[in-house]
Amino acid sequence: MIAEIIAAGSEMLTPYRQDTNSLFLTGVLNDLGVQVAFKTIVGDSIEHLTGAARIALSRADIVIFSGGLGPTEDDLTREAASAALNLPLHRSDALLESLAKRFAARNIPMPPNNSKQADVLQGATVLDNKYGSAAGQYLDTTIFHSDQPSVRRIVILLPGPPKELKPLFTEQVVPILATSLPPRFLAKRMLRMALIPESTVDNRTAPIYKQYPDVETTILAHTGEIQLHFLSAKPSLAEAQARVDELTGKIEAEMEDAIYSSHGESLEDIVLLNLGIRHLTLSAAESCTGGLLSERLTAIAGSSRYFLGGAVVYSDALKTTFAGVPPETIATYGPVSAETARALAEGIRTRTGSSLGISITGIAGPTPGTGADAHKPIGLVYIALASATSTEVKEINITGDRERVRFWASQHALELIRRSIL
Amino acid sequence: MIAEIIAAGSEMLTPYRQDTNSLFLTGVLNDLGVQVAFKTIVGDSIEHLTGAARIALSRADIVIFSGGLGPTEDDLTREAASAALNLPLHRSDALLESLAKRFAARNIPMPPNNSKQADVLQGATVLDNKYGSAAGQYLDTTIFHSDQPSVRRIVILLPGPPKELKPLFTEQVVPILATSLPPRFLAKRMLRMALIPESTVDNRTAPIYKQYPDVETTILAHTGEIQLHFLSAKPSLAEAQARVDELTGKIEAEMEDAIYSSHGESLEDIVLLNLGIRHLTLSAAESCTGGLLSERLTAIAGSSRYFLGGAVVYSDALKTTFAGVPPETIATYGPVSAETARALAEGIRTRTGSSLGISITGIAGPTPGTGADAHKPIGLVYIALASATSTEVKEINITGDRERVRFWASQHALELIRRSIL
Repeated sequence: MIAEIIAAGSEMLTPYRQDTNSLFLTGVLNDLGVQVAFKTIVGDSIEHLTGAARIALSRADIVIFSGGLGPTEDDLTREAASAALNLPLHRSDALLESLAKRFAARNIPMPPNNSKQADVLQGATVLDNKYGSAAGQYLDTTIFHSDQPSVRRIVILLPGPPKELKPLFTEQVVPILATSLPPRFLAKRMLRMALIPESTVDNRTAPIYKQYPDVETTILAHTGEIQLHFLSAKPSLAEAQARVDELTGKIEAEMEDAIYSSHGESLEDIVLLNLGIRHLTLSAAESCTGGLLSERLTAIAGSSRYFLGGAVVYSDALKTTFAGVPPETIATYGPVSAETARALAEGIRTRTGSSLGISITGIAGPTPGTGADAHKPIGLVYIALASATSTEVKEINITGDRERVRFWASQHALELIRRSIL
Repeated sequence: MIAEIIAAGSEMLTPYRQDTNSLFLTGVLNDLGVQVAFKTIVGDSIEHLTGAARIALSRADIVIFSGGLGPTEDDLTREAASAALNLPLHRSDALLESLAKRFAARNIPMPPNNSKQADVLQGATVLDNKYGSAAGQYLDTTIFHSDQPSVRRIVILLPGPPKELKPLFTEQVVPILATSLPPRFLAKRMLRMALIPESTVDNRTAPIYKQYPDVETTILAHTGEIQLHFLSAKPSLAEAQARVDELTGKIEAEMEDAIYSSHGESLEDIVLLNLGIRHLTLSAAESCTGGLLSERLTAIAGSSRYFLGGAVVYSDALKTTFAGVPPETIATYGPVSAETARALAEGIRTRTGSSLGISITGIAGPTPGTGADAHKPIGLVYIALASATSTEVKEINITGDRERVRFWASQHALELIRRSIL
């Protein structure tokens, strides 16, 4: 069975807003064994929406509409589905009553417009919406053609707001769809690697995952990171899990410690987890990243147990004030130098009393460095990690704009911490 | 004239990847006076893609394809457009030669597959791609029907990668399209407001902007911010600009200093700009935001002139080490208190020697505070701004999850700085 998703709403045909519901719906449908073959985005015009509905019914087994179920004259999904299916709408007394209750509970008179939200396609099941006034609808029907064989179609109407659509789909549509489709057991895994080119990952892993045609492998590149997604569907969960685990194990053996996460955790999660396991604390002195590394670590709930904080030493003076870097070091080697990075990491560690101190200093651009740094290239970054016994300093060259240099620098810092405490 | 955008590529029918080219294309088309009426996303199947192309040609004047122009067997846009238009493809010697040169320059033999990238729709203009091997195509044609009037169609084939599509469209398609469409002069403005509900903005501004039906007004809500976009198209630029400026002026008079930006600048930009105008420097002591405020400010190039840096005082001890907060203040009132916020702001200002010191301390959740903070609610945040003469402290309650509390706290801090130096 293939599906088409129709997102209704003129705002998604502007440069400002995008349909995002379809990503969620696609994920859930794939888990049920349904592929999404088409997505259509159409505005609030009855002619365009009805046309799109007719086309979808001609080429997909399951047609899912999102949006256009509100009370305004722009909300036309019910009417368009009715016209395309050639099925009348009936006003549901039960729905009218529940709409009236909704307004009564808020002490607002129900505007007459809202009654149209009680219109239901003939034969459709109403899907209650706990989070809004727009009920969903589910219809399993047969379309008869004079000149072609009749076809079965499942038509689903969902409210547009993601906070309404997601629970409604998961709680009410999935159980019905699951009984209409052959049973399927899914196993999934995700491996994550930082700072490694996609082509390297693909060259080394393709010979392995190609031996597992029954496991769907997807390589995704994000900034500073590669993800490998594995999915297997089998008649039993044990069988599916065994295949995914076997493949994942072989890929882990090939990529070794390039893999920072074997169950989808983020790099920040893994760094904090490893600090916790080893009873270590961390502090940071950030120059070119200006707080980004600290921000990424503290975004994780519970990080305060292992990350004490640190300093954003954006000016040269603060490198001395907060991390005790000797002014001569900065004057001689420049703020962007291995020597300054080392002094920053050692200094922040001493000042905060943490087990480990990390520092980042670099030229994020677009303006070049000054003084001793004047001739250093944009993208040059030094990262240092100090412990009680030693300090490791790394020199990195990062290409791209200011945002990219800063993010990759924070990624390199996290990866340096992770590898050093492995 | 209305347009349809067809994004070709099976990866956009997974839960992981979304078509983003259409947002860019829609913005540029709108500026030319063309509305996008449909967007279709379709996988790498010749049958599905040809069907989608036929449908688009039946309902839109301009049909733009993105993607599917590569050399692999999954790249089928040229073939599908040819089938749907019923027009043959001709292999272009000039394109073949430029492909061969491309590979020769890299000392790689050209794989035989790549020759199909030289296939051009009969009558189409080739659009050179400076950033990749896939050339674009532009066709202005008439489709004859036996039973209906013939129609004019503009068909545009563009490479999928945004870094190739965007310059190609701007540099080569826009000049041709502009000569095919009635001349139009556009004026645009954007007003931005922080920390104000969308409904408040709409209630106060709708009576004004509704008097300007010839200016298109769009209200967009982002986290912690509302944007008002104005667009007017007139036969002369002066006329368009006058209408937009008149409306913007009235809205500015109504919303007064809630508007932080009247030409689209970000809140960070405006804060740094105002610091610069007044020759002020800033430092920050961040607890619950963990570096987010510093990160946002330092993301702006040139921020180092006005933002010196500061401290991420995540642990109680660092509040004393880096900002000199008396341990008794923390023990008595708790780290999340007006007293601690005041001491942090004053302390970071003194330690760094900046003109202004900002501090943020709060309970971001999901775990509640401890010690003296144990009974304080998640989302409680104190922000303080210290100058040489006085310190202002604000208590705020923010609803939502950890990410939202942290972002809104940084937004409140920026807005406090902006208003205090206005």
